[in-house]
Amino acid sequence: MEPYLTRCFENPSAPYARARAARDAVEGARADIAHLMGAKPDGVIFTAGATEANNLAFAAADGGVVTDAAEHESVLACAQARDAVVVSVGADSRVDPERLCAAIGPTTQLVSVELANGEVGAVQPVREIARRVAVVRQQRLAEGSRVPLWLHTDASQAAGSLSCNVTSLGADMVTLSAAKVYGPKQVGVLWAGEGVRLRPLVLGGGQEGGVRSGTENVAGAVGFAAALSIAQGCRAEECRREEALRLRLERALADEFPGMVVSGPRSPKHRLPGLLHVSFPGLEARRLVVLLERRGVSVGTGSACAASRMRESHVLHAMGLPPEVSAGSLRITMGRQTSMDDIDYAAEQIADAVRTEMQRTGITQEDMLNRAGGLAVGRRR
Amino acid sequence: MEPYLTRCFENPSAPYARARAARDAVEGARADIAHLMGAKPDGVIFTAGATEANNLAFAAADGGVVTDAAEHESVLACAQARDAVVVSVGADSRVDPERLCAAIGPTTQLVSVELANGEVGAVQPVREIARRVAVVRQQRLAEGSRVPLWLHTDASQAAGSLSCNVTSLGADMVTLSAAKVYGPKQVGVLWAGEGVRLRPLVLGGGQEGGVRSGTENVAGAVGFAAALSIAQGCRAEECRREEALRLRLERALADEFPGMVVSGPRSPKHRLPGLLHVSFPGLEARRLVVLLERRGVSVGTGSACAASRMRESHVLHAMGLPPEVSAGSLRITMGRQTSMDDIDYAAEQIADAVRTEMQRTGITQEDMLNRAGGLAVGRRR
Repeated sequence: MEPYLTRCFENPSAPYARARAARDAVEGARADIAHLMGAKPDGVIFTAGATEANNLAFAAADGGVVTDAAEHESVLACAQARDAVVVSVGADSRVDPERLCAAIGPTTQLVSVELANGEVGAVQPVREIARRVAVVRQQRLAEGSRVPLWLHTDASQAAGSLSCNVTSLGADMVTLSAAKVYGPKQVGVLWAGEGVRLRPLVLGGGQEGGVRSGTENVAGAVGFAAALSIAQGCRAEECRREEALRLRLERALADEFPGMVVSGPRSPKHRLPGLLHVSFPGLEARRLVVLLERRGVSVGTGSACAASRMRESHVLHAMGLPPEVSAGSLRITMGRQTSMDDIDYAAEQIADAVRTEMQRTGITQEDMLNRAGGLAVGRRR
Repeated sequence: MEPYLTRCFENPSAPYARARAARDAVEGARADIAHLMGAKPDGVIFTAGATEANNLAFAAADGGVVTDAAEHESVLACAQARDAVVVSVGADSRVDPERLCAAIGPTTQLVSVELANGEVGAVQPVREIARRVAVVRQQRLAEGSRVPLWLHTDASQAAGSLSCNVTSLGADMVTLSAAKVYGPKQVGVLWAGEGVRLRPLVLGGGQEGGVRSGTENVAGAVGFAAALSIAQGCRAEECRREEALRLRLERALADEFPGMVVSGPRSPKHRLPGLLHVSFPGLEARRLVVLLERRGVSVGTGSACAASRMRESHVLHAMGLPPEVSAGSLRITMGRQTSMDDIDYAAEQIADAVRTEMQRTGITQEDMLNRAGGLAVGRRR
C-alpha cells in the first residue's frame, strides 16, 4: 500500500499518465480479487467495508427479503428497514435451509445468509441454500413470474478459512472485507453476478460503474488484493493449524471447568477453525476480560461491533442460550500470529481468571455445572 | 498512519485494552478536526470521502433543496434525485446570493453551495448566503412554520486555502475531504450542527453515533487529522506562494497567446490561489494533455471525477463558455510541492505544446483571438 499512500497519489480518474498508474493499481487489484473469487472483474465493486457492501446488496431488492436471526447487525438492520422475514436458527446458530427457503414468498427478491458467523463461528449451509433458491427461481420462471430472486452471502468472516469462489458458493452477491483477512479497515467488496442490477447508495462522479461514486481508495484496494491473496493461499494449512490451537485451548479449559459451555457447531466442517466461544455460567464476562487484559490476553465478549454498547448479543439470544450462560461468554479468536505457546499461556491465564472470579463470587464447580445444565461440557462427554 | 496500518490494528469497538488505543486514535483525530473547524467533536462524522459526506448531508432533507449549477457532481446528483431548484451561475462561475436565496420556497429544507469550485477555482459567497438563509429561517419562525432550513457547504476543495471554521462560514453542515489536503483517499467528514438530524445511508453496528455504521478507518482518521492540521497551519503562507506561482504562469502564457481565455473570478479574494483554468480556443485540450505528459507536465481537462467520461464539463457549460473555448481548456493546479522553477518549466512546455498544436491545425494567433472574442486575455487588458 505504501507507494499509493505516498508517491503515487494521483486521482485514478485524472487524464494524465501518472494517474494511470493509480488507475492500473485499482484495476489490477479488482482483477486479482475477481480471480480469487473465480469471477469476472466487472462484477467486483469496491466499497468502504463489509457493512456498506451488505447495504448495497440489500438496496438491489425492492421486494421482500428473507434472512436469519444470527446475521451481522448490518444485515439485520437492512432487513428490518424492509419487508423482511427473519427465520430463527438452531441451538448451534446454524440455519435450516428448508426452513429458510420455506419463508420465500412470491414477492421475495433477496435471501441473505452469511457464510460464517463472526461471533460463535458457525458456517452456514450456503451451497444447499443456493440449490433451493435455484429451484424457487425455476418455479417462478415456469409460472411466468418476473420477480427476481437473488441469494446474497456475507462471506467477510469466512474469507480467511473458506473458499470464496462464487460458483461453488452459488450466490448472486458476495460480501468480503479486507479487515477480516489482515488487510486495511474500511475496504470491502460486493461481488454481484451479471443478472443483478445494483442501485447506488451514494451518488456522484460515477466511479465503480456508477454504483459507488467517490475517488477510489487506491491503497486500500491494493492492500485488500494482497491480503486476500495471502489469506486464500495459506487457508488450508492455516485452518488445520488454528483448529489444533482451538481444540487444545478448549480441552484445557474443559478439563478444569466441567460446567463450561462451548457454543456453536461441533463438527469442524460447520465452524471456523480459529474461533472459540465459551461461557462460564454465573460469572460476568466483562470482569474476566478486564482480569485477562492485565495479563496480556485479549478476549472479547460478543461481537465487537455491538460490544461497545454492552448489551446481550443477538446471536446468543437467537441460539436460545440462557441469559446467565450468555452473560458469562468469552469470544476467543486465534489467527496467523497465534502460536501454541500463546495458547498454553492463554489457557493458564483464562483458567486462573475464572478461578479468581469463582472465588470472589463464591460460585463452585458444582454451581456452574448446575447452571449450565445439559449444555455443560462435563455433561456432554 | 503507519502504526494503525500495522501494529495497532484492533477494532476500536472491541472491549480489551489494546483496542482502546485504536479508539483513542479515532477520537483524538475527531477532536483535532473539530478543533480545526472551531466545532464540537460530536458533530464530526467520519465518512469514506467528500462524495459520501455530501450524500449524507442531502439525506438529512426530505423537502426541497436549492443549489447551483457549478457544484460538484455528487451534489448535483443528490439534488437531481430530489425536488431541487438548481440556480445558474455567473460567467465567472460565482453564485449570486440574492438569486440563490430567492429560490428558497416554503418547503425548502436544504441549501447547498460549495465553498470553492474545484474546476475553475471560484470561491462562493457562503457567508453572505448564510446571512440570507438565517433571515429566511427567522421569517419562518415568525410565521410559525416548523420546516427546517439548513445550509450545507462542500468545503473539500477549499480546506487547503481557506478557513473551515464553521462559525465564520455560518453553515449548518460542512463537508471536508482528506485527499484534498494531501491526506489519504476515501476519508472525509461531514460536520453537522446541533440542530441537524442526520439520517444514515448505511445501517449496521451503529458507529459514528448511529449515522454511519462500519468499523472505523483508524489510519484514515489519524491521517486526515494530521493532513488538515498541516494544511490549515500553512495555508496563509501557502496561499501567497501559490498565487505568485499562478500569476507568473498566467502572465507568461497570456504574453504569448493573446487569444487565450482565463476562466473563473479575477479577484484573488474570490478564487483559489493555486488553480489556473485556461482555454486555447480552437485547440483540443486532450491533445495538449498528451503532448505535455510526455514532457513531465501533468495537467487536467475539466474535473477529474468526470474526466474519465470525456464529456464537456458541466461547470464550463454553466458559466456559458462557448463549446469551442471549453474544448480547449486546461485545468492546471499547483500545490505545496510546486516550485517557481516547476512553473517556469511548465510555462515553457505549455507554450511549446500550444504552438505545436497551432501549427498542426493551422490555427493562427489571429484565429484564436477571433474565436475567443471578448473573453481573450489580449482584449481584456
